[in-house]
Amino acid sequence: MKAIVIGTHGGPDVLEYRTVPDPDPGPEEVRIRVRATALNRADLLQRRGLYPAPPGAPADVPGLEFAGEVETCGERATRLRPGDRVMGIVAGGGHAERVVLHERLCLEIPPGLSWEAAAAVPEAFLTAFDALFLRAGLAPGECVLVNAAASGVGTAALQIARASGARVVALSRSADKRRRLSALGALAAPDPAAPDLARAIRDASAGAGVDVVIDLLGASAWRTNVEVLAPRGRIVLVGLLGGATTEVDLAALLIKRATVVGTVLRSRPLEERIELVRRFGRQMLPLLAAGRLQPVVDRTLPLGEAAAAHRLMERNAHFGKIVLVTD
Amino acid sequence: MKAIVIGTHGGPDVLEYRTVPDPDPGPEEVRIRVRATALNRADLLQRRGLYPAPPGAPADVPGLEFAGEVETCGERATRLRPGDRVMGIVAGGGHAERVVLHERLCLEIPPGLSWEAAAAVPEAFLTAFDALFLRAGLAPGECVLVNAAASGVGTAALQIARASGARVVALSRSADKRRRLSALGALAAPDPAAPDLARAIRDASAGAGVDVVIDLLGASAWRTNVEVLAPRGRIVLVGLLGGATTEVDLAALLIKRATVVGTVLRSRPLEERIELVRRFGRQMLPLLAAGRLQPVVDRTLPLGEAAAAHRLMERNAHFGKIVLVTD
Repeated sequence: MKAIVIGTHGGPDVLEYRTVPDPDPGPEEVRIRVRATALNRADLLQRRGLYPAPPGAPADVPGLEFAGEVETCGERATRLRPGDRVMGIVAGGGHAERVVLHERLCLEIPPGLSWEAAAAVPEAFLTAFDALFLRAGLAPGECVLVNAAASGVGTAALQIARASGARVVALSRSADKRRRLSALGALAAPDPAAPDLARAIRDASAGAGVDVVIDLLGASAWRTNVEVLAPRGRIVLVGLLGGATTEVDLAALLIKRATVVGTVLRSRPLEERIELVRRFGRQMLPLLAAGRLQPVVDRTLPLGEAAAAHRLMERNAHFGKIVLVTD
Repeated sequence: MKAIVIGTHGGPDVLEYRTVPDPDPGPEEVRIRVRATALNRADLLQRRGLYPAPPGAPADVPGLEFAGEVETCGERATRLRPGDRVMGIVAGGGHAERVVLHERLCLEIPPGLSWEAAAAVPEAFLTAFDALFLRAGLAPGECVLVNAAASGVGTAALQIARASGARVVALSRSADKRRRLSALGALAAPDPAAPDLARAIRDASAGAGVDVVIDLLGASAWRTNVEVLAPRGRIVLVGLLGGATTEVDLAALLIKRATVVGTVLRSRPLEERIELVRRFGRQMLPLLAAGRLQPVVDRTLPLGEAAAAHRLMERNAHFGKIVLVTD
């Protein structure tokens, strides 16, 4: 099969599009003919040698999600059949024409969803669902702050929170992206560079502050996150695009009775990944099937042009997901 | 009635022992004739002007807990009768011969417990119970690290965790206190000044690290707390004796999928305080009645000698609670 291979670490040019052996499914696994996959920040880090694949995942083929059809089933994989349309997350190897994974990690693709749209779902929506509900315990009526909201996870978090009865304040540095975030349902979409940002967020939250922060930035957003947090608020650390190290006033966390939760999907053991996928399937797939959640695809490129896709993501001009399709 | 009054802010000598008006119970409140109360770090901070009483609490009479008998009941207070032996937390005013509080905040004192022992229970055991179970979700078999473990909250956390099937590593700088912590059931009681502290804690935890940290220190303990934390571990920030501001590596929180929770009892609204007290009553009072949890009283002084008690606590030589008794 064809796959994107990280021959050596470096810029987008190190990515090779070449033939590698097909993977073989284990007894409880299925092999998927990938129709579309998508790009994540983690792929860029892995290409640069900063985020090695966990044990058991392909070491040199990036890619954390896929949409495709079941090709063959392991001898104990009995829930799926060849031809089934499924999507899901993998710990690596997604930027290829075939992936193998445990059958219970697969999510059925709702009938109305194209391959491209389905490929934009797994990482963004599973991460957002996990962060909002399983980490932060979001409740209806609460106020959520999403920074870097124009990202895949950001647009997913905005939609899931809104569909669950929460109010969302979404941040993006681009005026055009802020308009699109408002169109997606954000109650307010202030400019994070505005001098009165904390006040704008507080005003949007009706004065009490935000109950949940979905933070993709880390250090650069820390001070604002804590400042606008309501009593008993929860900050979920999902990404560190703005740096990892910051000075923290622990007294503010005590006084606000705040919770800070770090989270990452990729390193989770199989049983936790399956549990997350099953819960997502029960709670979110119906909303996706009904069109109340819509995957946001910025653009679609052929898998062979993965290097161009990496460059696009590094320019930060996209809104939502960059999707890659196989032949 | 007699009470300790903070006339002006400063050292222990600013405390006055003088006559103030008796408080009157509201319709759902009871008035307690206080037999014994106890000292907390918060009282020292309040004396210095660093921790003002919350709205509604006496502004100038410190004291956050009591044991005594019901004297009069408000017209809608129907659960208690005069003469009932009760203990509980108040947001201030405890260092006095009488306090008033909502009747549902009162905990029945188990028959075998003296006034002095009962006065050592509320703040320490409610704080520890709340931190271990309601904040950290402690499960049997997990490993708990308690720093400043010779304190009232520390000795309570150690005992509650142990009685709940958890393993406890307890830290104290004093060799004598470490011996007493081992006698109270600590699996290990390393010296926090030891150069290989993190390794000693890891070894005691059987290598996986600790699942829960009950942290009374803050900044000075942060680095070790994170270093020894197991995947999905929880750090509960209960005190800041070691400083409030520290540099934090957010990446470590992501990779470990760690949770950090700040907590404080005093500022909580009535309904949360009642809920905590009722849960504690159901879950912990039976263990206290059976002697499986034992309040640790360092020494007992007359209420009029509160200044001496403050000095004792500032010297840090006590083990457990410093109790004050009324005439």
